[in-house]
Amino acid sequence: LEEENIEAFREHFLELHSYDQAQFYEEVGPDIRQVIYRFLSPKEMAMIFQSIELDDDEYENYLNEMDTSYGAAMLSFMYADDAVDILNELDTEQRENYLEMMDDETVEEINELLAYEEYTAGAIMTKEYVSVLERATVREAMRVLRQEAQTAETIYYIFVVNDAHQLLGVLSLRELIVAEGDLLIHDIMSDRIVSVKVTDDQENVANLMKDYDFLAIPVINDERELLGIITVDDIIDVIDEEAEDDYSKLAGISDMDDNDAGPIKAAGKRLPWLIILLFLGMITSGLMGIFEATLDKVALLATFIPLISGTSGNSGTQALAVAIRGIATGDIGGKDKFRLVLRELSTGLIMGLVSGALVVGIIFVWKGTFMIGLLVGAAICCSIIVATLAGSFIPILMHKLGVDPAVASGPFITTLNDVTSIVIYLGLASTFISQIM
Amino acid sequence: LEEENIEAFREHFLELHSYDQAQFYEEVGPDIRQVIYRFLSPKEMAMIFQSIELDDDEYENYLNEMDTSYGAAMLSFMYADDAVDILNELDTEQRENYLEMMDDETVEEINELLAYEEYTAGAIMTKEYVSVLERATVREAMRVLRQEAQTAETIYYIFVVNDAHQLLGVLSLRELIVAEGDLLIHDIMSDRIVSVKVTDDQENVANLMKDYDFLAIPVINDERELLGIITVDDIIDVIDEEAEDDYSKLAGISDMDDNDAGPIKAAGKRLPWLIILLFLGMITSGLMGIFEATLDKVALLATFIPLISGTSGNSGTQALAVAIRGIATGDIGGKDKFRLVLRELSTGLIMGLVSGALVVGIIFVWKGTFMIGLLVGAAICCSIIVATLAGSFIPILMHKLGVDPAVASGPFITTLNDVTSIVIYLGLASTFISQIM
Repeated sequence: LEEENIEAFREHFLELHSYDQAQFYEEVGPDIRQVIYRFLSPKEMAMIFQSIELDDDEYENYLNEMDTSYGAAMLSFMYADDAVDILNELDTEQRENYLEMMDDETVEEINELLAYEEYTAGAIMTKEYVSVLERATVREAMRVLRQEAQTAETIYYIFVVNDAHQLLGVLSLRELIVAEGDLLIHDIMSDRIVSVKVTDDQENVANLMKDYDFLAIPVINDERELLGIITVDDIIDVIDEEAEDDYSKLAGISDMDDNDAGPIKAAGKRLPWLIILLFLGMITSGLMGIFEATLDKVALLATFIPLISGTSGNSGTQALAVAIRGIATGDIGGKDKFRLVLRELSTGLIMGLVSGALVVGIIFVWKGTFMIGLLVGAAICCSIIVATLAGSFIPILMHKLGVDPAVASGPFITTLNDVTSIVIYLGLASTFISQIM
Repeated sequence: LEEENIEAFREHFLELHSYDQAQFYEEVGPDIRQVIYRFLSPKEMAMIFQSIELDDDEYENYLNEMDTSYGAAMLSFMYADDAVDILNELDTEQRENYLEMMDDETVEEINELLAYEEYTAGAIMTKEYVSVLERATVREAMRVLRQEAQTAETIYYIFVVNDAHQLLGVLSLRELIVAEGDLLIHDIMSDRIVSVKVTDDQENVANLMKDYDFLAIPVINDERELLGIITVDDIIDVIDEEAEDDYSKLAGISDMDDNDAGPIKAAGKRLPWLIILLFLGMITSGLMGIFEATLDKVALLATFIPLISGTSGNSGTQALAVAIRGIATGDIGGKDKFRLVLRELSTGLIMGLVSGALVVGIIFVWKGTFMIGLLVGAAICCSIIVATLAGSFIPILMHKLGVDPAVASGPFITTLNDVTSIVIYLGLASTFISQIM
């Protein structure tokens, strides 16, 4: 296709959307990519590199394919926030190598962004925004806009600042376009502006932008100085990431992105969890050993163990999922937490009583024994209540302690509930063994 | 606060962002809302109503608080796609009542959108976009834009059509602003345009917009006529909805949105699943009954049942989650499916062998018995392989059959794997019972 004909390749390739260019770039092998590096300028390559979506550790491989100077030039042409994401993946020495080859202004910008902690507003914001002084006119603002249109990440919001670069207001391009040319920006801007602090968590920023339907949101420091903006396309990635994160933790996988990975890599990502849970499962086995005498007397008892632990696991996972989503979307505020746990207690009580009664009935009809049914029913009722409480209380407690509640992942809660439900069941059985036999 | 002073209330309230207005509107009781209806015009109320995010069935309650004519006027002022979402929740008679009171043009637009199936591009698109003819000049296009700026949902893309309203190209406002006034739109537009079909699934549209970082995407029919556009804020809601949907199904809840609900409502949403799973769990108990004789002979065997079924459940959920996310993000294409199942088979094999070997070792050290360790290890190995295969094969098969794969929710797969793992374990135990004792 593009072995040696530079002109033809450039003409076809540069017409493509950068996402399609990136797809092509990823699919061809390293040899063809070498040709691409020769054919395209670092600036053109920067557009492509911004559009690839890779596992964090793969950027390094691509960068290593390029000349260091070519790579450095490409990184300078990228939006600063994207360049920082990539530089963050390199080790310190490599990063220094690239930074040395860039011009001072870019390096300063990048170093500033590198200083912000991961997953904060500062780490995902971009410095390429349009700002005007409050005393400018609409006509002057339009001129600034035209100049910046090439490099700004969005020109659809114009941020209004004073001489100290403090954020005063915002104006959408829509409002600017319909305004008279002589009006002062100060008079037509909106001063009810929603902004985020540079240290805010990215998840909070995402919730805010989702609620307000903003295309961009300004980022300020404690002095209200405008430091950057966060655009909606970055927020979509955050929303996606956070949802994926909660989802994989509920499923007990450390990292989801492995549809293309080989079986060894996939197993490597899942095995650690599986093995930790296996050890937890051994505890269950150990505890059951205490009740071996009871099991020995009535083997029928053992047949209900999967039913009880399964039901307790299911109700615990339900409560967990509700609590984690509530925390993630910010629905669960400070004082609401106690109410939620209380609500879950009542919910567990209702579900426990209904399920318990049902089980007593089924076992009576099926096995013709009332005592064992009552035992299993009581165990299921108690297990559901405990599991529902644990499923909501544990993530809320972790959130309160500043730990990511999603770490209390589905399998952990399930295994914990396995233990408690079996102890409840066999404990009851051992206590009432004479009545049962 | 705003008991009778209309002017003061309007001044304060109308300055708020519509999201904050909506929050206030939701929080106050029905009495205060009656005052709001008196104080605000249907048009102002429309902006608020567009910003509330409610459970689908709650819109009806709010609408019923208003005069039918006020409600109808408000619905006409809303963006057509949002009005349609609400009308979709009403029964046919009520919907007809509202439609009768609207003007013909609005009714036509709404009826067109109502005709599209839920979860398709047609159902979430809006008709309020800016389009210009290809033979217009930049100056003329800017004039159209200024006129439409008030009503259009986004003015940041201008869609270029011919006289038959067929989509020819697109131009961003950014490009328009930097262009010379005399140029023809035809000459500066981009004709490499990405569009979606009106019947496309909303999830595909979301993936496309996420990949390409579009703020809006045009919707066309088979004749390439431009029917509407889908904006990024609607897509964020779709992404959120779909992620929430997958998440709640993995957790076994029919509908997640219940952090504010009381315990009876919450229990009502979770109990159906719990009870279905309870019946499935009964099957496990029934199958175990077949092996009662074996359990009677070696009670120690029963103590490993939770370990085996738990491990099998965990590995199945992992495989399920990977498959469902792969399908949702479109990562799993047509021919990839077979490869994925093969990959999962190998992954299961690796995980099964590692976990199995580990278990043999632990049980030997702990209980001093090699035969029971071998039995449990073999059962865990086989269970992991079967569970991993089932976890990936079942959702892929369902997807192939056109059923939403997320319906094969976490608890179902887990319960299924409970059954198979216990049958494998006790089957092996019964076969080799003489060696074990």
